[in-house]
Amino acid sequence: MPEGIAPRLIPAIVQEGLRGRVLMMAWMNRRALAQTLRTGFAHFYSRSRKKLWKKGEESGHVQEVREVRLDCDGDVILLIARQRGRGACHAGFRSCFFRRRRGGRWVVADPRVFDPGRVYHR
Amino acid sequence: MPEGIAPRLIPAIVQEGLRGRVLMMAWMNRRALAQTLRTGFAHFYSRSRKKLWKKGEESGHVQEVREVRLDCDGDVILLIARQRGRGACHAGFRSCFFRRRRGGRWVVADPRVFDPGRVYHR
Repeated sequence: MPEGIAPRLIPAIVQEGLRGRVLMMAWMNRRALAQTLRTGFAHFYSRSRKKLWKKGEESGHVQEVREVRLDCDGDVILLIARQRGRGACHAGFRSCFFRRRRGGRWVVADPRVFDPGRVYHR
Repeated sequence: MPEGIAPRLIPAIVQEGLRGRVLMMAWMNRRALAQTLRTGFAHFYSRSRKKLWKKGEESGHVQEVREVRLDCDGDVILLIARQRGRGACHAGFRSCFFRRRRGGRWVVADPRVFDPGRVYHR
């Protein structure tokens, strides 16, 4: 198990290149981090399903991890990754952060790049 | 209060430009988000001090917010911001994510850009 990280669940940010789009944030425990380091593919811990999951296990939109970074307090992970497939977001966008605050509302600011109905079958 | 975000504390990622470095992650409640939207400067909620804080209130390294984004699940915020001063990290680095996993260890991967002793007085 990698030392130096908090024993609880910690946020893991996924960024497409060190100066790329922030794609998503999910949660990691030590096992998810160990599995990510071992395999080179992003793994997280699902709080709702209470289990480890590999990003893209259903959609095929896996994330190849290039760099794993840790913050100053040792309780946030940053994955620098290559996104396979058209997007990281289950709603059909490249990034989960496709909405932007404008005029007092959240508005969609990015184009949809795939049809979630054709990618996710459950 | 901005609608559409979870009532609990949620992670807020700060990125320097939509294709810039990820600088840090902190926590927001609705009040921190409202204050950020109202003032244009990043505000967070400190879990240890149990209060709202303005980033840079002590160091002067404030963050001018250009864009506020929300993720698909409505429970993570992404601030696109301009970092004033030399860095966001209290340890003296531009980004809090200055350590990288390499050869089974966390190694410092970025240069230190300021002396924290001269910036933080507590």
